[in-house]
Amino acid sequence: MEKRIEALLDNGFVSSVYFTGKTDEMKERILSLDKDYVVVTDENTFTYSPSPERTVVLESGEDHKNWESLERILSFALDRGMGRDGIFIALGGGVVCDMTALASALYMRGAGLMLCPTTLLAMVDATLGGKAAIDFRNTKNTVGAFHPASEIIISLSTLSSLPDKEFMCGMGEVVKHAFLSSDDELYKFLFSNRDGIMARDTAVLEKMVELSLLVKKSYIEKDPTETKGIRSALNFGHTFGHALESITDYSISHGEAVVWGMKKALTSGLWQGITPPPFYLWCIDLISQFPFLDEYKVAKKDYEAFVEATKKDKKKSGGVTKFVFLKGLGEPILSPLTDDQIAAMIV
Amino acid sequence: MEKRIEALLDNGFVSSVYFTGKTDEMKERILSLDKDYVVVTDENTFTYSPSPERTVVLESGEDHKNWESLERILSFALDRGMGRDGIFIALGGGVVCDMTALASALYMRGAGLMLCPTTLLAMVDATLGGKAAIDFRNTKNTVGAFHPASEIIISLSTLSSLPDKEFMCGMGEVVKHAFLSSDDELYKFLFSNRDGIMARDTAVLEKMVELSLLVKKSYIEKDPTETKGIRSALNFGHTFGHALESITDYSISHGEAVVWGMKKALTSGLWQGITPPPFYLWCIDLISQFPFLDEYKVAKKDYEAFVEATKKDKKKSGGVTKFVFLKGLGEPILSPLTDDQIAAMIV
Repeated sequence: MEKRIEALLDNGFVSSVYFTGKTDEMKERILSLDKDYVVVTDENTFTYSPSPERTVVLESGEDHKNWESLERILSFALDRGMGRDGIFIALGGGVVCDMTALASALYMRGAGLMLCPTTLLAMVDATLGGKAAIDFRNTKNTVGAFHPASEIIISLSTLSSLPDKEFMCGMGEVVKHAFLSSDDELYKFLFSNRDGIMARDTAVLEKMVELSLLVKKSYIEKDPTETKGIRSALNFGHTFGHALESITDYSISHGEAVVWGMKKALTSGLWQGITPPPFYLWCIDLISQFPFLDEYKVAKKDYEAFVEATKKDKKKSGGVTKFVFLKGLGEPILSPLTDDQIAAMIV
Repeated sequence: MEKRIEALLDNGFVSSVYFTGKTDEMKERILSLDKDYVVVTDENTFTYSPSPERTVVLESGEDHKNWESLERILSFALDRGMGRDGIFIALGGGVVCDMTALASALYMRGAGLMLCPTTLLAMVDATLGGKAAIDFRNTKNTVGAFHPASEIIISLSTLSSLPDKEFMCGMGEVVKHAFLSSDDELYKFLFSNRDGIMARDTAVLEKMVELSLLVKKSYIEKDPTETKGIRSALNFGHTFGHALESITDYSISHGEAVVWGMKKALTSGLWQGITPPPFYLWCIDLISQFPFLDEYKVAKKDYEAFVEATKKDKKKSGGVTKFVFLKGLGEPILSPLTDDQIAAMIV
């Protein structure tokens, strides 16, 4: 197990990211903890837990990313008599990581947190940065907090059994990071390692996840709690994407929705003269290297619901939702769209 | 309306405390806000709200300090389409303040917060310091966060209609602050203004609340999120007190329980040689100036439940609950007690 990334957040708090090719090393690390802990998994990841008697097993899926699941985690810790110096350990995908982080944030006003992501999406999207949340009334992550993990363990071998759809879901966020990076290292890496990535070559994936997290680190260190308008850039593709997830009742995966949303944001940026045509083509070129969701047409009867869904976005300020557009590589800007402009994009 | 106290917390965040004798000034301040806002009251404080159409009215009492109430606040804000730049305004006692603060902490991972306490307890205990919480499975404030208010408006006139029991509840925390202060100004003030306090003289109460909040400020500024063992001192009397509240199903008020708990902690400190006899007597002398709850004997059948309740305390570390004892004025120390020692104190 090797420490590769350290992100320095508010108040000198450090999130450390360790990489390992072996799930056993992750288990050993958990068993070696000198504090009380509770492991949170779902039905799919229960087998990764090294201590079944300390494990809460949640029902799988975004449908269960709610208060009831959170209550189960909190109750389990309370029944164990765990103190606020105890550690909540997430062992699963993004839903498990987000909910465990929120349980840890709320338990006695803040307990310890370790994240062991088992999906590509969770590795690149739900670890560094401290975002904790549950869904609320069909709106994603409306109820949450910032509560970073002190330790993040990325065990690449968990990806070998990941279904293709889940894998591509994570790739959506990786591609997003390639566009938000201040250099083209990740972009080039993705282009030249396309086959290794799709074959799930562990060494290739490890480098890819590391490069992706380094991009994320650069944004969150400058703006740990998303109050300075810097970190919001990580929501590129997400306002369109979240609205699509919402109107399709989350039948479309997050990563697919985000790729779809990035295309919408790129096209919309192009029309407005924000995104230069060569950069637009350069981005679309990378997206087209990977088998992402084909075009999705929003049905006319859903236009209004779609526009309404964008208005619930958390990046709203003064009643107006801001979308993220790209002026170039690593050059995001936030700007609003009218209802008609939004509708025109989803026809 | 006059700003009297500024507390400097983590990341340069400032909580400002304003005092006013007139409820109308508080209402005017709310109406002058240039951001979207939601007012939270309970059935008793609804009339203080200057904008009924923006007001959530919760059921009154500690019984409703739960997720269901929190959900109502969050839903109301979501239905209004309020953004994360909006402000949650608590207008009520400690329960309303604590829940509004938690709703604000969780809404889109953190919205604005203004607290307008209408009870003495809320003024001195639930404003400065950012503690947000709900009760969870009969354990007080087990689920919560630190989320300080930018603006706190103390309108003393709201105290004139406060029932005696509620008033004395707040006095418990004021007396606690007198013992935790680094000087004897508040202690002397309470002694020499006993009659003015009990007659609810507004000028006297204003000074008393200000002195009390200055003590609290000195602790929270040094340890905003209770991670350094300094702020925990504010829990003097609370481990015994919370356990009493828990086994009596919250039929005893918080302040009364805390005074009872302080007596237990003082006596226990005396027995252990931590609290010097003259200081013990000096403290008991002040408590006896005010009509607090008489001695409460825990029934023998409840000993075990009481001891168990102390083990759910949030100050637990390494599986051991630490109680706050006093070596002298403003000299708290944290130390554990055995189950037998606890039982011996409550006979």
